[in-house]
Amino acid sequence: MRRTRFSEWPCSIARTVDLTGDWWTPLVMRQAFYGARRFEQFQHQLGLSRNVLTQRLDALVEADMLDRVPYQDRPTRYEYVPTEKGRDFFTVLAAMIRWGDRWLADPEGPPIELHDRRTGDRVQPAVVDAATGEPLDIRNIRATPGPSLPDHLAAHLRALD
Amino acid sequence: MRRTRFSEWPCSIARTVDLTGDWWTPLVMRQAFYGARRFEQFQHQLGLSRNVLTQRLDALVEADMLDRVPYQDRPTRYEYVPTEKGRDFFTVLAAMIRWGDRWLADPEGPPIELHDRRTGDRVQPAVVDAATGEPLDIRNIRATPGPSLPDHLAAHLRALD
Repeated sequence: MRRTRFSEWPCSIARTVDLTGDWWTPLVMRQAFYGARRFEQFQHQLGLSRNVLTQRLDALVEADMLDRVPYQDRPTRYEYVPTEKGRDFFTVLAAMIRWGDRWLADPEGPPIELHDRRTGDRVQPAVVDAATGEPLDIRNIRATPGPSLPDHLAAHLRALD
Repeated sequence: MRRTRFSEWPCSIARTVDLTGDWWTPLVMRQAFYGARRFEQFQHQLGLSRNVLTQRLDALVEADMLDRVPYQDRPTRYEYVPTEKGRDFFTVLAAMIRWGDRWLADPEGPPIELHDRRTGDRVQPAVVDAATGEPLDIRNIRATPGPSLPDHLAAHLRALD
């Protein structure tokens, strides 16, 4: 199966894409980041079927991106709360927001703005080199084989350099 | 059609996902960032069919992510070179690399390392607030309606706050 194959590729991009390559999955996480917790909130706001939403929420719980937390007895009902791994995934969506706002947004401006809850200041995501704080520019970056890259793929990478 | 619908949503994440929601598309861009230029390089290194690769390259040229540049006459042959928009998309893959390296990598370490071509130093991507340089933490961030968000979606967003 295709999904399994990508999840086993020695590539953090392929593994992330495998998790989010379904169109709904990143949008379910987006909605959780914007504050959705209950099934009905996700469903109403995303307008997807109960069936598809159930599958996506289950997959995100299985992947340890969301915790399923009971908030009511008889019948038991659950809220879906981002885990630490899930919260950290916001950085991937933030990179999409930055790029999408720049290259795909409508002329009148972005659909969503991010603000710091503590200061109220506008937050503009940037993808930088942690050491220097400089925005990443692929023209200045070389990819080299890491510890878990199989030899034949390392050979491909070196051939491109 | 699903793809069309997402591309028209007022959400930079949905629009980016629409472009990359196909599993192969971000991996074709990855290969271009790592130095692949010619059809055979992409095909050999990704191991996908000529048919699928042709579709993905055409879609990326159509989306102004790659330029198709002739490098040979009779028969004319082309190289695929990232445009400015395409190069900027590396930031989205860099955010995936960071997150995937942290949460999905094998215990022996990441499959790929990034280095600065000028200094040779290791590059570690970080997703920060451009104004403060602080790493983004969704717990400190509130999403508010921007200029291009339709009213009914703005109401959803406010209801979550």
